[in-house]
Amino acid sequence: MNKIYIKDLKKYLGQEIVLQAFVDNIRNLQYVQFVILRDGTGKVQMTIEKEGNDSLAELIDNLTLESTVKITGTLMDNPKVKLNGMEIIPSKIEVTSVSLSELPIDKKISDNTLRETRLDWRFIDLRRDENNLLFKCETLLEHALREYCINHDFMEIHSPKIAAGAAESGAEVFKLDYFGETACLSQSPQFYKQMAMASGFDKVFEIGPAFRAENSHTSYHATEINMADIEISWIDSVNDVMDMEEEWLKYAIGKVNDKYGDKIKETFKVELVDTNITFPRITFVEAKRILKNEYNFVGERTEDFERQEEKLLCDYAKKKYNCDFIFVTKYPFSARPFYHMLDKDGLTNSYDLLFRGVEITTGAQREHRVDILKQQMIEKEIDSDSLAFYLDFFRYGCPPHGGFAIGIARLMMQLFNIDNIREATFIYRGPTRLKP
Amino acid sequence: MNKIYIKDLKKYLGQEIVLQAFVDNIRNLQYVQFVILRDGTGKVQMTIEKEGNDSLAELIDNLTLESTVKITGTLMDNPKVKLNGMEIIPSKIEVTSVSLSELPIDKKISDNTLRETRLDWRFIDLRRDENNLLFKCETLLEHALREYCINHDFMEIHSPKIAAGAAESGAEVFKLDYFGETACLSQSPQFYKQMAMASGFDKVFEIGPAFRAENSHTSYHATEINMADIEISWIDSVNDVMDMEEEWLKYAIGKVNDKYGDKIKETFKVELVDTNITFPRITFVEAKRILKNEYNFVGERTEDFERQEEKLLCDYAKKKYNCDFIFVTKYPFSARPFYHMLDKDGLTNSYDLLFRGVEITTGAQREHRVDILKQQMIEKEIDSDSLAFYLDFFRYGCPPHGGFAIGIARLMMQLFNIDNIREATFIYRGPTRLKP
Repeated sequence: MNKIYIKDLKKYLGQEIVLQAFVDNIRNLQYVQFVILRDGTGKVQMTIEKEGNDSLAELIDNLTLESTVKITGTLMDNPKVKLNGMEIIPSKIEVTSVSLSELPIDKKISDNTLRETRLDWRFIDLRRDENNLLFKCETLLEHALREYCINHDFMEIHSPKIAAGAAESGAEVFKLDYFGETACLSQSPQFYKQMAMASGFDKVFEIGPAFRAENSHTSYHATEINMADIEISWIDSVNDVMDMEEEWLKYAIGKVNDKYGDKIKETFKVELVDTNITFPRITFVEAKRILKNEYNFVGERTEDFERQEEKLLCDYAKKKYNCDFIFVTKYPFSARPFYHMLDKDGLTNSYDLLFRGVEITTGAQREHRVDILKQQMIEKEIDSDSLAFYLDFFRYGCPPHGGFAIGIARLMMQLFNIDNIREATFIYRGPTRLKP
Repeated sequence: MNKIYIKDLKKYLGQEIVLQAFVDNIRNLQYVQFVILRDGTGKVQMTIEKEGNDSLAELIDNLTLESTVKITGTLMDNPKVKLNGMEIIPSKIEVTSVSLSELPIDKKISDNTLRETRLDWRFIDLRRDENNLLFKCETLLEHALREYCINHDFMEIHSPKIAAGAAESGAEVFKLDYFGETACLSQSPQFYKQMAMASGFDKVFEIGPAFRAENSHTSYHATEINMADIEISWIDSVNDVMDMEEEWLKYAIGKVNDKYGDKIKETFKVELVDTNITFPRITFVEAKRILKNEYNFVGERTEDFERQEEKLLCDYAKKKYNCDFIFVTKYPFSARPFYHMLDKDGLTNSYDLLFRGVEITTGAQREHRVDILKQQMIEKEIDSDSLAFYLDFFRYGCPPHGGFAIGIARLMMQLFNIDNIREATFIYRGPTRLKP
C-alpha cells in the first residue's frame, strides 16, 4: 500500500494526494479555514477558502477536533505557512470517524489533568506529541538492544511466564489456578536463561514481561514490567558481563541519540548520554569509603545502599569521571541471591549499575558448580527440594556463565528524566490500577 | 571480551588459543585420544598423544561426556581430520564443570527417548544439533519480522498481560487473584493494539506471550504461546493488511533462507518457501465451491472450515499456483468476532492465511465506528458494559485500521515440517505440563 505519511509530504509538492489524519486543530476565520492535520509522523496545514467552497466549508464548520479524515487535495508550496512551508488545498474531505466534541482530558497540556485521570484515558494521553516521541524512542532503543545481540550471535528465548514455583524466593508472586494446581506468574526469566546456558545456547536474550505482586505505591514500582534479560556463557569473570552490558547500552543509546537526539533535547530538555566515556568501576567497600570520606555520609545499612547513597555515588561518578553511569562490584553475599558466585574472600562476583542516581541493573557471574550451589542454598536457608529442577541444570555439564537484567521503563525514565514509571509505560499496572 | 567461538577458528590457525566448550565425544585409543569439543557454533577435534602427556591423558581418561572444559592449545591445520580439517593440540585442560556419566535421555537420537521424558529434561534435549539450529532460525525469523516493522516506521508496544476482563469473550482464560480482585491473563493484545490505533500510533507490532486456559491435548495446542501481533491505521481496505502480511512474511522467511537454507535442508529435509510467488486470494464462497467441484468434499460446517478442508485448499494452491500459502477472504460474520468490519453484503472484511495445510493467521479490518460496533455486539449477544473501556477507544476519533496475529511456534512448525508444537517451543506449557 502506498499510504502517504505527513513526514514524507515534501516528495509530493505540487501533486494531488490522498491523505488520512486526525484533526489536530481548526481556526475558522471569516473568509478562510485553517485545519491542522496530524498523523503519527507529523502535522500539516489544510487551507479552505470559504468562497466557492460552500460544502467543504460547511463540513469544517461541523467538524470536531480529534475526528479523523481522508482528504484528496493538492499539496502547495507556501513559504508563508509557518508549519513546514506548505499547505493542502482540498477538493474532497471524507470524515472517517467522528470525535465527541469534548475530550475527557486536556490533550495538549498534561499538567492540566490529574495523572490518574490521564491514565484512565491513557489512549488520549498517548496522543500528546511528547508521548509519541517517547514511544518512538523506546521502540528504537529496544530494537537496537536486540540488534546488538543479533550482531553478536545471541539466541532469543521466550521463557514461560506461568511457572510451577516462584522463580526467585523472597519476593511476592501472583498465584493462579492452573487446571487445579497452583501456579505462579514469573518474576524473572532467571532460571530459564540459566537453563539455556546448560542447553549450550552460548548467549541469550529475552525482552518480555515480569510480574511482581508487591503492594507498593511508589513512583517506580509496577506489578508488570518489561524486562530485558541477558545471559552469556564461557565467561572468565564477571568483568566479561560488565564489558558486554556497557557496550550494549552504549550501542543502543547511541542509536537513539543519532536519530532523535535533537528532538529529545527540544521536548524533554535532556541530553542523552555521552557514549564515549568509560563507565567507572568501584567495589562496594570503596563505595562506602567514598561516601564517608567525600560526602560524610554513613548509610544505615552496612551490606547494601539506600537511595541517597546511590544518588551520591552517581554524583561522585559525574564529578570525578564525567560519567552518568557507575558500576559497583563485590556486594556482600547477604545482599545477594544464593546463585551469585563468591570470590575467595566470600564476596559476590556481582555488580549493580547505577545511572543518574538510580540502580538500573543487577548482574553477576552465577555459581555453576552444583555442590557449591547447594552449599549456598543451605547458607540462605532455601529448601533445595523446591528447586530440584533448577539444580538439575548443573549436573550434566554447565558452562561458566553470568548475566543481568534491566527494566526498560526504568532505563527510559533515567534517560528522559521522567519522574514516574506510569509515564514511561504504555499501559501501567499497579496494585490499584488494572484498567484500561 | 575476545572469546573465541568454534565457528571462527579458521582465523587462528597456527596460533595458541584458549577455547571453552562442552565435551561432545571422546575416542580413547591405545596411543591417542580424540576429544570432540562443542560450543553453540560448531565442533572441533582436540588430539592428545598419550606418550609424554601423562597428566592430560589421565584427565581425559576420567573425563565424562557433556562436561565443560577450558583449554589452552595450538590450533593446527590437518587435512586428515574430517571435522573442519584442523585439530587442537592442548597444553592445558581445565575442567570447568563435571557431568554425571549417564545422561537421563539419549542426547544424540531423539527417537530413542519418549517425548514426555525428553521434555522433562528439555535442557539436555535442546543440546541436540537440530534444536540448536531450530532456535537459531527462530531467533533470526523473529528478528527479521521486527526489522521489517522498524524499517517501515512501526512502533513497538508491550500490552499488559494482566487484565481486568477477558480480552476476547468466548475462550477460556486463566484467572488470578490481584490484590483481592479477580484478574485474568491476556489471551491476545487485540484490544490494546487497537487502542494504540486510537492513540495515533499509526502502525504497531508486539511479539509476546498469550495465554489460553483450554484443556486441549493435541499436537498444536499450548496454554502459553508466543504471538506476533500487528495493527495498522489509515487502511483503505483489508487488502492493505494482507499486502503487508505477505510482504512481511516473505521478508523474514527470505532472511532465514539466505542464512540457514542449506543447513535446514540438510537437517530437516525441507525447503523453505519460495518467496517470489504471490499468495493467491480466494473468497470463502469460492473456497467452498472449489472443495466441492475439485475435491468432491463438502465439510460439515457451512460457516467455517474443518482441518481437512484447509488441507485441500492448500493442496489446490500448490497445484494451481505453486504456492504454499493461500488467503481465504470474506468469512461469514457468524464465524468471526464482533469487531470485524462487515461489507455491504454482511460478510466480514476478514481473512485467514493458510500455510501448508494449516491456518496460521486470522486478520481483518476492524469496525472503528462506535455505533456500528455496538450494533455488532448486540448481534453477538455481548454485554456492552463489560467492554465499556474498549468502546471508549472509538468515541474520540479513531483511524480506520486492521491487523492480524500469528503464533510463532505454529509458523515454525509449518516451515520446518515439525509435527508437534512441543518440539517448536523453548519450554512448552500444556494442561499437564507446568515443568520445568
